[in-house]
Amino acid sequence: MLSSPLMAKELPVKSKLMMADILKASSATDWRSLNPDNTLYLELPKGRVVIELAPDFAPGNIANIKALVRENYFDGLAIVRSQENYVVQWADPDEKREIKTAKKLIEGEFTVAYSSRLPFTRLPDMDGYAPEVGHANGFPAGRDPKKGTAWLAHCYAAVGVARGTESNSGNGSSLYVVTGHAPRQLDRNITLVGRVVDGMTLLTTLPRGTGALGFYEKAEERMPIRSVRLAADVPESERSKLEVFRTDTAAFKALVAAQRNRGGDWYKVPAGYIDLCNVPIPVRPQK
Amino acid sequence: MLSSPLMAKELPVKSKLMMADILKASSATDWRSLNPDNTLYLELPKGRVVIELAPDFAPGNIANIKALVRENYFDGLAIVRSQENYVVQWADPDEKREIKTAKKLIEGEFTVAYSSRLPFTRLPDMDGYAPEVGHANGFPAGRDPKKGTAWLAHCYAAVGVARGTESNSGNGSSLYVVTGHAPRQLDRNITLVGRVVDGMTLLTTLPRGTGALGFYEKAEERMPIRSVRLAADVPESERSKLEVFRTDTAAFKALVAAQRNRGGDWYKVPAGYIDLCNVPIPVRPQK
Repeated sequence: MLSSPLMAKELPVKSKLMMADILKASSATDWRSLNPDNTLYLELPKGRVVIELAPDFAPGNIANIKALVRENYFDGLAIVRSQENYVVQWADPDEKREIKTAKKLIEGEFTVAYSSRLPFTRLPDMDGYAPEVGHANGFPAGRDPKKGTAWLAHCYAAVGVARGTESNSGNGSSLYVVTGHAPRQLDRNITLVGRVVDGMTLLTTLPRGTGALGFYEKAEERMPIRSVRLAADVPESERSKLEVFRTDTAAFKALVAAQRNRGGDWYKVPAGYIDLCNVPIPVRPQK
Repeated sequence: MLSSPLMAKELPVKSKLMMADILKASSATDWRSLNPDNTLYLELPKGRVVIELAPDFAPGNIANIKALVRENYFDGLAIVRSQENYVVQWADPDEKREIKTAKKLIEGEFTVAYSSRLPFTRLPDMDGYAPEVGHANGFPAGRDPKKGTAWLAHCYAAVGVARGTESNSGNGSSLYVVTGHAPRQLDRNITLVGRVVDGMTLLTTLPRGTGALGFYEKAEERMPIRSVRLAADVPESERSKLEVFRTDTAAFKALVAAQRNRGGDWYKVPAGYIDLCNVPIPVRPQK
């Protein structure tokens, strides 16, 4: 039986407000702009993928990714892998490109020590993969209060640093994006650095690779990468003007409540629960 | 804090066996063939999508879908919707095709009464959306022992009967497939009839619709459906010869154990948990 105290006490009652109502009633202060110093543009032939970085969770790896970006490491590389219901990954397919200013190895940042400085809006619900889950600055995350650790969660659109067997065998030169059902078993096993906030479809509609683990077998199957740029290094007129719904507000708590117990005429049985990776974090064009 | 008794008692210890080992060591009796009377072929220009039906969970809706199939209702229709991280759906885009022998309205089968006749391999873990979860004849499912009800779960690849606001407003003439993170809030709100066991990529790589809810806005954007056939009505030489890993065996329990606490050198921290929709149900060519 379900043993969450919350589930036992609270009988699901449909929310009177639906997510659309909450977004419509939201004020300008319920949204935040992307910080150009923590925003990456992955430029593909068919468009731009916008990634928000989360330096609170992986400062060392993110510093190295920025160094790689600024030495134009990724320009002309390719998407090397697309595995159904799992991940898309990019890298140097020839494994020949030289790393100049960035570090060649970075220690994995699988968890970080958390402080009261890091805002955390806890979900009311239990989670199987972490003692506590919630949102920190717009990112789905787990926490272990006993150990004082926090980590980003492998939800759809999460961006991480590919690695080999050793914990320090990644450096940010190969990144992956979750494109399927959340593979939460990866949490605390690999470094996540952020999430895709725009352009997921450019990645999810790519043909799947036919090699092991979804790697492409032929060079011509790989989608080329035009460039990866830090938004701060792109002229302001060429930046993606996006706003993300804040996760530290009353409006966000109302959104979670509405999604836990869907209102409206269509739903017959409200769930009385929401799993971390089903909580939407809305993104809209800047107003 | 996590209040599952299982999580409190059991400290995660890496499994010695990995899924690949278990599949390699499996015997012929750990697999079952698809029953051609409960298998649909959705024929698209680029290939076949194979759907296994679950008549234990939705006998009325499945009977109606078979009736529609046998009057060639779907032939020449189209995929009308692809919404990112959610569903693909097919239907009559012109809403003009006549239903001949099938029923025009079918009561929703959102849950069924379960009996001891229905095998159920329960997962050891808690679940936020259902009092109990596990697998019944190869399908992820939830159960409520107090109410004596069971239902199929909205995991990736689940196939369901689209409906309007009323519970009986579906009839199987429009079906959807889950293509993203499991939208479990739909459980018990809509009729699921089975799951895709082969060909998901034909659906997930379709361009997303640009209309509301991912509906395509122009006729030329829609992928045409050549036909939908019951495998039993297709000459044996043209059938997809597939086997599904049984979910009522010791080998399946071993697979779940291995996936809950991943072994091998790569994983550093075993999860000690698995959510229903992360449990793989392997499919292979018939041996």
